[in-house]
Amino acid sequence: MKIDKLIGNRFKERPSDCIIDSHALMLRGGYMKNVANGIYSSFLPLRRITQKIERIIREEMDAIGGQEVLFPVVMPASLWKESGRYDSVGSELVRFVGRNDSPLVLGMTHEEAAVQLVREYGNSYSRYPFMIYQIQTKFRDELRPRGGLIRVREFTMKDAYSFHTSQEDLENYYDLCYKAYERIFARVGIPEVVAVASDSGMMGGRVSHEFILLTPVGEDSVAICTNCDYRANIEAAESIVENVRDDASNPLELVHTPGMHTIDEVSRYLKTTPDKCCKAVVYQKNIDDSYIILFLRGDIDVNETKLRNFLGCEIHPAEITENSGIIAGFIGPYNFKGDATVLFDKSLDGLNNLVCGANMEGYHYTGLDISRDLGVVEYHDFAKIMDGGICPKCGKASITISRGIEVGNIFQLGTKYTKTMQMQYLDSAGNPNYPVMGCYGIGVGRLAASICEAHHDDYGPIWPISIAPWQVHICAIRSDDAQVKEYADKLYDELWTKGIEVIYDDRNVSAGVMFSDADLLGVPIRVIISPRNMAENCCEIVTRDKSLRTRASLESVYDKVTELIGSLSGQYKG
Amino acid sequence: MKIDKLIGNRFKERPSDCIIDSHALMLRGGYMKNVANGIYSSFLPLRRITQKIERIIREEMDAIGGQEVLFPVVMPASLWKESGRYDSVGSELVRFVGRNDSPLVLGMTHEEAAVQLVREYGNSYSRYPFMIYQIQTKFRDELRPRGGLIRVREFTMKDAYSFHTSQEDLENYYDLCYKAYERIFARVGIPEVVAVASDSGMMGGRVSHEFILLTPVGEDSVAICTNCDYRANIEAAESIVENVRDDASNPLELVHTPGMHTIDEVSRYLKTTPDKCCKAVVYQKNIDDSYIILFLRGDIDVNETKLRNFLGCEIHPAEITENSGIIAGFIGPYNFKGDATVLFDKSLDGLNNLVCGANMEGYHYTGLDISRDLGVVEYHDFAKIMDGGICPKCGKASITISRGIEVGNIFQLGTKYTKTMQMQYLDSAGNPNYPVMGCYGIGVGRLAASICEAHHDDYGPIWPISIAPWQVHICAIRSDDAQVKEYADKLYDELWTKGIEVIYDDRNVSAGVMFSDADLLGVPIRVIISPRNMAENCCEIVTRDKSLRTRASLESVYDKVTELIGSLSGQYKG
Repeated sequence: MKIDKLIGNRFKERPSDCIIDSHALMLRGGYMKNVANGIYSSFLPLRRITQKIERIIREEMDAIGGQEVLFPVVMPASLWKESGRYDSVGSELVRFVGRNDSPLVLGMTHEEAAVQLVREYGNSYSRYPFMIYQIQTKFRDELRPRGGLIRVREFTMKDAYSFHTSQEDLENYYDLCYKAYERIFARVGIPEVVAVASDSGMMGGRVSHEFILLTPVGEDSVAICTNCDYRANIEAAESIVENVRDDASNPLELVHTPGMHTIDEVSRYLKTTPDKCCKAVVYQKNIDDSYIILFLRGDIDVNETKLRNFLGCEIHPAEITENSGIIAGFIGPYNFKGDATVLFDKSLDGLNNLVCGANMEGYHYTGLDISRDLGVVEYHDFAKIMDGGICPKCGKASITISRGIEVGNIFQLGTKYTKTMQMQYLDSAGNPNYPVMGCYGIGVGRLAASICEAHHDDYGPIWPISIAPWQVHICAIRSDDAQVKEYADKLYDELWTKGIEVIYDDRNVSAGVMFSDADLLGVPIRVIISPRNMAENCCEIVTRDKSLRTRASLESVYDKVTELIGSLSGQYKG
Repeated sequence: MKIDKLIGNRFKERPSDCIIDSHALMLRGGYMKNVANGIYSSFLPLRRITQKIERIIREEMDAIGGQEVLFPVVMPASLWKESGRYDSVGSELVRFVGRNDSPLVLGMTHEEAAVQLVREYGNSYSRYPFMIYQIQTKFRDELRPRGGLIRVREFTMKDAYSFHTSQEDLENYYDLCYKAYERIFARVGIPEVVAVASDSGMMGGRVSHEFILLTPVGEDSVAICTNCDYRANIEAAESIVENVRDDASNPLELVHTPGMHTIDEVSRYLKTTPDKCCKAVVYQKNIDDSYIILFLRGDIDVNETKLRNFLGCEIHPAEITENSGIIAGFIGPYNFKGDATVLFDKSLDGLNNLVCGANMEGYHYTGLDISRDLGVVEYHDFAKIMDGGICPKCGKASITISRGIEVGNIFQLGTKYTKTMQMQYLDSAGNPNYPVMGCYGIGVGRLAASICEAHHDDYGPIWPISIAPWQVHICAIRSDDAQVKEYADKLYDELWTKGIEVIYDDRNVSAGVMFSDADLLGVPIRVIISPRNMAENCCEIVTRDKSLRTRASLESVYDKVTELIGSLSGQYKG
């Protein structure tokens, strides 16, 4: 490929709406173009990158016995009604009506389609275990697409579904897939990706992991223990709080706290600290707007995912109306008369001498002793793990919170889909059983962007050779020089003929333009041919990451390049 | 791959709703499963076939300078409004509303997306010509999906778009692409595909061709001249009619024709023939239900595509209301008083002594002489070409009508999209111009089904080796025989290790079951290992098309198979 034929504009200026580097560089390098909010078209360089990523994914999925299939993008709503997700999933799921009034959905994930495809095939225990996967377009109508390919509405995804006759067999396969994912991320050039325990969300099931590329620009937050190997998405991380009860409980006392609504205001006014307060946070259920009041220690934040999972429904921050019986800013668990689901976080367990709202405008109580004043109360974990918090695994106060991009996920789904969709097999004794399922996803475009995020400088991406759009970039500086042109043409032909992927720049432009374009294309090996070098019978070989800059005699260029391809490829063996 | 691990059920019974063989065989062979009307999921064998087809298409598109890109499935309605097709295309185009009330469409073709992607890139003449293509999912909400993968709602398509600075350059590239298509169809195993002139329909532009696999089960009708090389879809084929005018014109005379509504009834009643009648066919425009009355010779059929193209709008057969002034069954061009667009087909040009309706219940005229009685009338071609009709090219009455499946199409689009979407380039003199476009499609799934239609017997598909899911199928009959098992295992390993694609059947089932499964998978080369053959130190090598059945000594099997792969592959060089 000659660069003057490469379709797509490259440019210098960072687009003003790009918050993260990979987004800016992939626009600046002519990798893609925005079509609508969260919807992109791809040019050839990105297409080549994603195809190489897809090939690596296919190889690793095939290696663990996966069989490639293809599910439709458009599915009948009836399929999603079978699983119950037609109603339970929010407006990320596009629902529309086709001809003949047939209700349809756009696939944002394919558990239903997977069960539909193998429901008859999997009718005997002898067929298990098996795994099917596809690499296909998905559409998820995100409220806030962001970061270029990091969070889009339309994307290409590898999604795999495994079927088993026992939880133990699922767990074994889950481990296999976990290791395949580690190999995939290593082979595409980001071996630093870490697996963290995650929340299963709308997928159902219990055990799940996310594979996270740690980077400050990521939108996920991860709790990592610096003392042991504990790692979890903060949505899933258990919060451990050491509750210290005072030796003696003071009596409950009504105090006037005029205009003191927040924990900060109240604790300052009453000369105490937030951890001696009982905070109330109010939500409403999406379905009926009924109220949920969650009490937790004043210094602790709510983890809404845990709350949502506990309630089994969607919630939103409350708008408190006048006739609700809820006195905003003065809500407390003692003598609460409003109509609401009342919940207590573990951070309050056993505490006494607490400040809490008195359910009267301008008044709080001091001296609340939950067990004395409220009787038996159930505590659950609704708290967000904090930087410096206690590790749920080793018990040390060694939790750090980092940000990252989720580049893959794996879920143990259990029988959620096989039960709702009536997929059964006969076991060896002839009894019907529901198979257990796992599912395993990788977003291809997001992975490409993440690799760029992990490997770039100010001038462009530094693509790992395993997924780079080309392996070698020839720059013929001063191609109007007959010697330069002749040698460069010959080298291009030679490399191309021998199956090396080359992009060749023989444009009549300055070295500056050539190099800035080459930086944007991020090809790992660059061969620079110029009159000055030619005069010394050599040319320059440079790697995009600047780790190597060497001169090679004209006769040795081919061997040097092949050798370099070999050694660079060796870094990404998985 | 071992067949006992291959996901998908194979079965004997032809599903009752399958009209064509490829549909039945691809269901019976576990290639795909129906998800909804016109929507399928694919199993591994079909996935492998389509991936091989896609690879061949990619190679041929790259060879004519194409660059692979990727457009989105979901596009903003605004893009289709720019081209005007948001309003002009019927309900095959799925329109729906996404989050934030954004109107969206599902891509059924991507001219708009192609122009959007390269609108800025193509701003200088120096960048032309160029071609981009993608292989991606499309959704077309067909009213009547049929024939398995032949007419579906969701499908994978290769669609290519070329851009040029002159019609001449477009025509040159069009020819290149035409030849690339011939190579593609030859390489996938159906070199018999013929190119026929076609109607451009909703795509716009003038010149277009369809590539048709002739088969009685096809849904397209093609006019083919047996005397010259003329070939056209009947939608596009010009109808040539020899009109013979009687020497003398009779006077116009009102005759009573009670209850005689049809041409057959009237001509029999008046003792004449249909070709001496002036027939009226009535349509209504979809937009406003206004009437169109088309007059044509009584023995000629209407080509609705020509009528639609002439009117530039969608039409449907009329429902004639009482107050329309139109007297159904007695409509004639003389003294017609109703409110309608009146059109005349060329088949009436110059005729006299015609029977026509008198626009009065129960009456016709005889002796109509159009030029005498109606004055100057414009004639256009609205007629369907007929079997035995006159060839528009050589003028001989040598037209035959055949049926076929459209497996590809190419269009010269002109500036329809670049003008409406304001894509311009500066020519060498610095003047703005609209580039001319071509577009080129191949439906991958339909192509797979067509190959099956062209190559099958009662027992299954006979896949050409270039696209077969596997190259070799090993049947180990009586795998409980230690010698059979040992040799078959070894052969499987050897072939696999050397990069030959093998499927291996070592199940403990009868030879009958093995062979019927093998027939359904349609793998071109079958190696049969059995105790009887082993006793003679040989095994059987059979081709799926039954053209070869030979025995080979155990030592020579690998060489024989490799040789056979080579010679079979040689048939599909393109």
